[in-house]
Amino acid sequence: MSTTEQLLTLRRDLHRHPEPAWCEFYTTARIVQELQRIGVDDLYLGEESYAGFEGERTSVPDAEELDTWRSRARAAGADPDIIEQMGEGYTGAVAVLRMGDGPTIGLRTDIDGLEREESTAADHLPAAEGFRSAVEGMMHACGHDAHATFGVGTLAAIKESAFTGTLKVFFQPGEEKGAGGEPMANGGHLDDVDYLYAVHVGLDEPTGTVVPGISEFLAVSGARADFTGVAAHAGGKPEAGRNALLAMSTAIQQLYAIPRHHDGATRVGVGPASGGSASNVVPEEATLNFEVRGASMELHDHMREWATRVIESSAALHGCEVDLRWGGSLPTAPSDEALTQVIDDVATVSGRVGDIQYFDSPDGSEDATFLMREVQETGGLACYLGIGSDSPGGHHTETFDVDEESLGIGVDVLTEAVLETERRQP
Amino acid sequence: MSTTEQLLTLRRDLHRHPEPAWCEFYTTARIVQELQRIGVDDLYLGEESYAGFEGERTSVPDAEELDTWRSRARAAGADPDIIEQMGEGYTGAVAVLRMGDGPTIGLRTDIDGLEREESTAADHLPAAEGFRSAVEGMMHACGHDAHATFGVGTLAAIKESAFTGTLKVFFQPGEEKGAGGEPMANGGHLDDVDYLYAVHVGLDEPTGTVVPGISEFLAVSGARADFTGVAAHAGGKPEAGRNALLAMSTAIQQLYAIPRHHDGATRVGVGPASGGSASNVVPEEATLNFEVRGASMELHDHMREWATRVIESSAALHGCEVDLRWGGSLPTAPSDEALTQVIDDVATVSGRVGDIQYFDSPDGSEDATFLMREVQETGGLACYLGIGSDSPGGHHTETFDVDEESLGIGVDVLTEAVLETERRQP
Amino acid sequence: MSTTEQLLTLRRDLHRHPEPAWCEFYTTARIVQELQRIGVDDLYLGEESYAGFEGERTSVPDAEELDTWRSRARAAGADPDIIEQMGEGYTGAVAVLRMGDGPTIGLRTDIDGLEREESTAADHLPAAEGFRSAVEGMMHACGHDAHATFGVGTLAAIKESAFTGTLKVFFQPGEEKGAGGEPMANGGHLDDVDYLYAVHVGLDEPTGTVVPGISEFLAVSGARADFTGVAAHAGGKPEAGRNALLAMSTAIQQLYAIPRHHDGATRVGVGPASGGSASNVVPEEATLNFEVRGASMELHDHMREWATRVIESSAALHGCEVDLRWGGSLPTAPSDEALTQVIDDVATVSGRVGDIQYFDSPDGSEDATFLMREVQETGGLACYLGIGSDSPGGHHTETFDVDEESLGIGVDVLTEAVLETERRQP
Amino acid sequence: MSTTEQLLTLRRDLHRHPEPAWCEFYTTARIVQELQRIGVDDLYLGEESYAGFEGERTSVPDAEELDTWRSRARAAGADPDIIEQMGEGYTGAVAVLRMGDGPTIGLRTDIDGLEREESTAADHLPAAEGFRSAVEGMMHACGHDAHATFGVGTLAAIKESAFTGTLKVFFQPGEEKGAGGEPMANGGHLDDVDYLYAVHVGLDEPTGTVVPGISEFLAVSGARADFTGVAAHAGGKPEAGRNALLAMSTAIQQLYAIPRHHDGATRVGVGPASGGSASNVVPEEATLNFEVRGASMELHDHMREWATRVIESSAALHGCEVDLRWGGSLPTAPSDEALTQVIDDVATVSGRVGDIQYFDSPDGSEDATFLMREVQETGGLACYLGIGSDSPGGHHTETFDVDEESLGIGVDVLTEAVLETERRQP
Repeated sequence: MSTTEQLLTLRRDLHRHPEPAWCEFYTTARIVQELQRIGVDDLYLGEESYAGFEGERTSVPDAEELDTWRSRARAAGADPDIIEQMGEGYTGAVAVLRMGDGPTIGLRTDIDGLEREESTAADHLPAAEGFRSAVEGMMHACGHDAHATFGVGTLAAIKESAFTGTLKVFFQPGEEKGAGGEPMANGGHLDDVDYLYAVHVGLDEPTGTVVPGISEFLAVSGARADFTGVAAHAGGKPEAGRNALLAMSTAIQQLYAIPRHHDGATRVGVGPASGGSASNVVPEEATLNFEVRGASMELHDHMREWATRVIESSAALHGCEVDLRWGGSLPTAPSDEALTQVIDDVATVSGRVGDIQYFDSPDGSEDATFLMREVQETGGLACYLGIGSDSPGGHHTETFDVDEESLGIGVDVLTEAVLETERRQP
Repeated sequence: MSTTEQLLTLRRDLHRHPEPAWCEFYTTARIVQELQRIGVDDLYLGEESYAGFEGERTSVPDAEELDTWRSRARAAGADPDIIEQMGEGYTGAVAVLRMGDGPTIGLRTDIDGLEREESTAADHLPAAEGFRSAVEGMMHACGHDAHATFGVGTLAAIKESAFTGTLKVFFQPGEEKGAGGEPMANGGHLDDVDYLYAVHVGLDEPTGTVVPGISEFLAVSGARADFTGVAAHAGGKPEAGRNALLAMSTAIQQLYAIPRHHDGATRVGVGPASGGSASNVVPEEATLNFEVRGASMELHDHMREWATRVIESSAALHGCEVDLRWGGSLPTAPSDEALTQVIDDVATVSGRVGDIQYFDSPDGSEDATFLMREVQETGGLACYLGIGSDSPGGHHTETFDVDEESLGIGVDVLTEAVLETERRQP
Repeated sequence: MSTTEQLLTLRRDLHRHPEPAWCEFYTTARIVQELQRIGVDDLYLGEESYAGFEGERTSVPDAEELDTWRSRARAAGADPDIIEQMGEGYTGAVAVLRMGDGPTIGLRTDIDGLEREESTAADHLPAAEGFRSAVEGMMHACGHDAHATFGVGTLAAIKESAFTGTLKVFFQPGEEKGAGGEPMANGGHLDDVDYLYAVHVGLDEPTGTVVPGISEFLAVSGARADFTGVAAHAGGKPEAGRNALLAMSTAIQQLYAIPRHHDGATRVGVGPASGGSASNVVPEEATLNFEVRGASMELHDHMREWATRVIESSAALHGCEVDLRWGGSLPTAPSDEALTQVIDDVATVSGRVGDIQYFDSPDGSEDATFLMREVQETGGLACYLGIGSDSPGGHHTETFDVDEESLGIGVDVLTEAVLETERRQP
Repeated sequence: MSTTEQLLTLRRDLHRHPEPAWCEFYTTARIVQELQRIGVDDLYLGEESYAGFEGERTSVPDAEELDTWRSRARAAGADPDIIEQMGEGYTGAVAVLRMGDGPTIGLRTDIDGLEREESTAADHLPAAEGFRSAVEGMMHACGHDAHATFGVGTLAAIKESAFTGTLKVFFQPGEEKGAGGEPMANGGHLDDVDYLYAVHVGLDEPTGTVVPGISEFLAVSGARADFTGVAAHAGGKPEAGRNALLAMSTAIQQLYAIPRHHDGATRVGVGPASGGSASNVVPEEATLNFEVRGASMELHDHMREWATRVIESSAALHGCEVDLRWGGSLPTAPSDEALTQVIDDVATVSGRVGDIQYFDSPDGSEDATFLMREVQETGGLACYLGIGSDSPGGHHTETFDVDEESLGIGVDVLTEAVLETERRQP
């Protein structure tokens, strides 16, 4: 079992080393170190975690960038052998505890950081206590450091419990880019999972609140549009140019102006975007990253179709070419009622939880939905729950933080949920 | 005197090492090496070139970037001592030949490269002949490598001539950013200059054509606008954000929509521009570089005032803040008729020049106008001339090139102009 | 009682004479004629219907336009005395049947047409059968002709029934402009109403379907923005102008780009909009009508605040002035469960209704919410129900139509609802 | 001959009755009345003025609107018989004085008003003196009332002179819409014209200044774009709509953002523009009138091509259709030097002219260029001159006015020009 001290130390260590999709070398190595300390029956690392996935991973950085992150992980003290096992960025891990013939229960936690510069303000706890991000421009601004800690802590607690089934903890990389969910969902390790829990900390709920079953995640697709115009001297021959930056600006304006849909929530997000080389040259190139979301696959498809038209027409309007490439999509997946009820029940018996909240408005997106869908489609049940946590700043902002009190709450609720799920099994 | 071979070698060497404003360490060192070979009476380097300038230089990179360029120059073989003399980016040089009591004649050439990736096409001569830019994303796409060569070649030729006055050649850095002209104009070395020539190669005129006196340069001001919004999760709480990228896109659209002016040419140029961090975060920051131009100071001021309103209102429209900083401005300066006539006359006597062309439509801008104004305001005369040169691509494009035949033409015309100016002196 | 024939004749007659807010002279007179035929105990007309309203009516046309509509009504055969009683556009009526000491039950129907040119297509029933709109640019494109018929038919049916309470039918003008609801809600005639039903036909549901209790109406505010720039000759002195049309276009773009809100549905609608006088004059004036909506008052306020900033900044951006005037707002008002249940129960016992549907996504807005709120705030109950009706075209389109089969269904359901409400009274 | 008093009375009368293209019934009748008083040898009216024109006139209003203007003219006192002769809007006239075998000299004046509401300010002379426009929304805001007066006055003066050639005065309709020039140029009456003068008052020059030969008119093309989208309820089903007004707004923004051309002046003008029916309906239709100009036919064609792309792409971007129809184009036509010299010489001998100015920057456009081209192409000479006139407001603004002192100056200069042209004839 892990002590509270150990969980806190782990979380702070992970917090100092945020890493992007498929670059979670330090994070994975550090988790593995804990798992080895605790002892697990099976531990899948590297390509083993994704053996059954036949698609192509998205958002994989090039070899040079992978190298940079590997070096950084080694320099920070990660085990070189473990890093080696992850090969070309096959980060993350699947840990298995086999404790009897009972049901197989899965727990999915995500582990990646976010491209954001963390606050240096004196009242930002990680800065004050010395565990602020050591990586420039990266930050655990969405609490995945806590998620990984939940996974480790729950596994440790179950190992000490009377649980007689199998527990599989999925430490999933690349959630922020929607990159890790699908490969891990199809990796093969979910095939025998009867019940799956996925968990998120914070969600603008205070410490002591639990959100039992979230179903409102938006389907999302990301895309990249490369606009190509014609360069010309902006002073001497402006009419000879075709302005890729102007095309991109038009596209940004019009993406946000896609009409709302009566049938439910839709979203547009844009960035990073850049273009132009110098103000005296008509911009020849501009690159736009963006995403669209919808509360259902239909809404998502509507947004995607509309956005495609916007991008192509904006390029045409300014006489430019555009290369539009859609990245992976995240589906929607509702939480099953039976597991939602489990969380509702076990949360309230925990002494540290004082409030149960249900959501009814759409929130962000989650590639946990890939894993949930996979389980549901083979007859299993899935549930996404939230563990409230006071934070000075909102998710994805520079002052986001996790109230460390919520670490223990999360482990308690998840541990009880696993045990209760076994008890309620028909 | 320099041989044609030497000039060609010099130009190709400079072409391989394009450097931006205040980073022309290699370029300056290489020019100085030639000047030392030829022998000059005075050579001002580093801060000495700018002794009288009391303003603050614009577009000076930070210490780290200066270091990078210094290192690159040393690695490319530039003399470390000369680099040392340039201190914190005081690149460029003023070379003086004192040959008698005659008039003091100045020649201004600019030496910097442009942020542009050079073509690798097989039919792009620098690529084919192995002197394509060795610096990623930088290119001599406006012929300043030829200009520096003109300066060296003319100085060498005058040294061998019967000239009895003083020749000062100003090797000016940072023309592309409008950064070097004003400091060099006010550096003190123009005080005794009676006649000043400035020269440009190409100008969309073929080899063998000369443009005697150009007066149509547009006044220009560059600016940088940093938009600051509020970050928020683009899926979960889009309304909490204030979108800096959207503000910037609005500004780009509206800058280009500033109405035309009945009184003459105006221009807008934008880039580089960038913003946003990830598509699931409402962009908190965006940065826009842009410029406005006008065929007179009034037109220029009109554009600048209008652009200021556009930037500030675009920020306000999207609930963002903006920090707008205007960089240096370039003035207009007409070529004096007497010197224009000198060029017209000497050009036609050169055996290699077959055509004289005059311009009547506005072209780009030039910080040579600072030097021209300085001379004109103290009673001297100034003239800006063009040396035609066949090129597969337009100025500032990736396939721009200088027909090396024009190197000798330029040196011939300039040398004859210096001699004829002395002859015609009242 | 009215025969089916009479209801159909009435509806078609009203359909031929669509009239805008406060101009429903013909419509009101025609309804009054039916009420007089049937016989009512009290009939409030003209200012009497709005006696208690202390605010100022919105969207009242000027005297000249009122005259035009009055003349048209007279020419179409409306009773001049009744028209006279409506004074300066106090159209609409409140009819009262007093049948005993039972509860007072209200029924609200709206009666105005919409600015839309009706289809002349051969397969558009009103065109084929000769009752297409006789008024150019106006059309009953939202079924208010059917609503008025529901009101008359229900009153007639209740008169013949064993009902022992009081029935008040509110024939409300100006719903499409959100103009009539508030004056009628505060007119004084709702003070003693215990239960209020409001009804809408169509709603994209087929004939035979009933929607028992709709709660999803969006709060809305309309506004008009008058942009004023400076005129100038567009060819000769474009820079002297300040382009009001460009300011308006910017505003339109940016209104649609107001970010979505995570907390629920928001909307933007724009039009009519116009500006400019001739293409050779920089547009001095432009006028924009628009509306914003939200699923709650908070969402509505958010949109309104944001839109205000967009309008003002768009004007500033182009150096224009703007006069922004917000018109009336419509609130939200949920249907009470008890009355919703009444409709659910009586609808299914009607032989002609085969399906009950509930809505869960936001739809348009309704100024019936003013009347519903008024009743609810004084302890009464209110319910908004829908009567399905096949239609070739959607609401507010040129081919919208009401399946006349639904006329009888509506009268049946409403009549039964009144009777059942009395029965269930505690 | 006409007295100064008569000219002033005529000008004020015409000023009170501004009329648009092909509707100048009152104006033409009033001019004819003066011509009859003076006595001319030939007077071509109605279709006779356009006999040789084989194209189709543009901007001809429909029969109903022509009727309205005819009625208005009759009501204002115009001779019904003359109105009758103008048929379906063949307004304008050609008056001929045959005084001998000398050269045939033409004078072209335009006579139409502008869609603009005239100022009612107390310090606006026409308002103060009671000859402000009697026509709502129309105004002589460009001085064509003075032009017609120049034509009448010059003809009267020449009749009293020793001129021995033929004078033809072309009273041309529809200049503001570029509608009258081409039909009159090709009407046949220019075939024998050796020298043609066209004249404009004002031009931002003060009374007493003459501009001898203007060559800087911009070529122009007008267009109308009808955008068609899909209507839908803006609150209930926004996604089902295709927003024609948004498409139009995008087009307006992007038309103004067409890049400037290095080769000379270009222009964009937009208006009137309108769209949408009600703010709760997604706008199905929007109509945009606009124009593009260029200082040469090449620049004009460049703008036209670019604008076409903008219109079509803006429609496509928003899923709309667009019907783009280009109206007539106006060409460029330089003033011939010989006639320019005539004006320069005669202007200075007139006692009332104290200054000669030449223009060098582009101004508006003029369909006089059709007539000038016609004469020049058959070997004749043409010249466009300006007669300065103090005015409180700029051309095309509500406070534009003509200093009546300039009426006499114009007649004097034109009369002298005709006589001097005869004298200088080879």
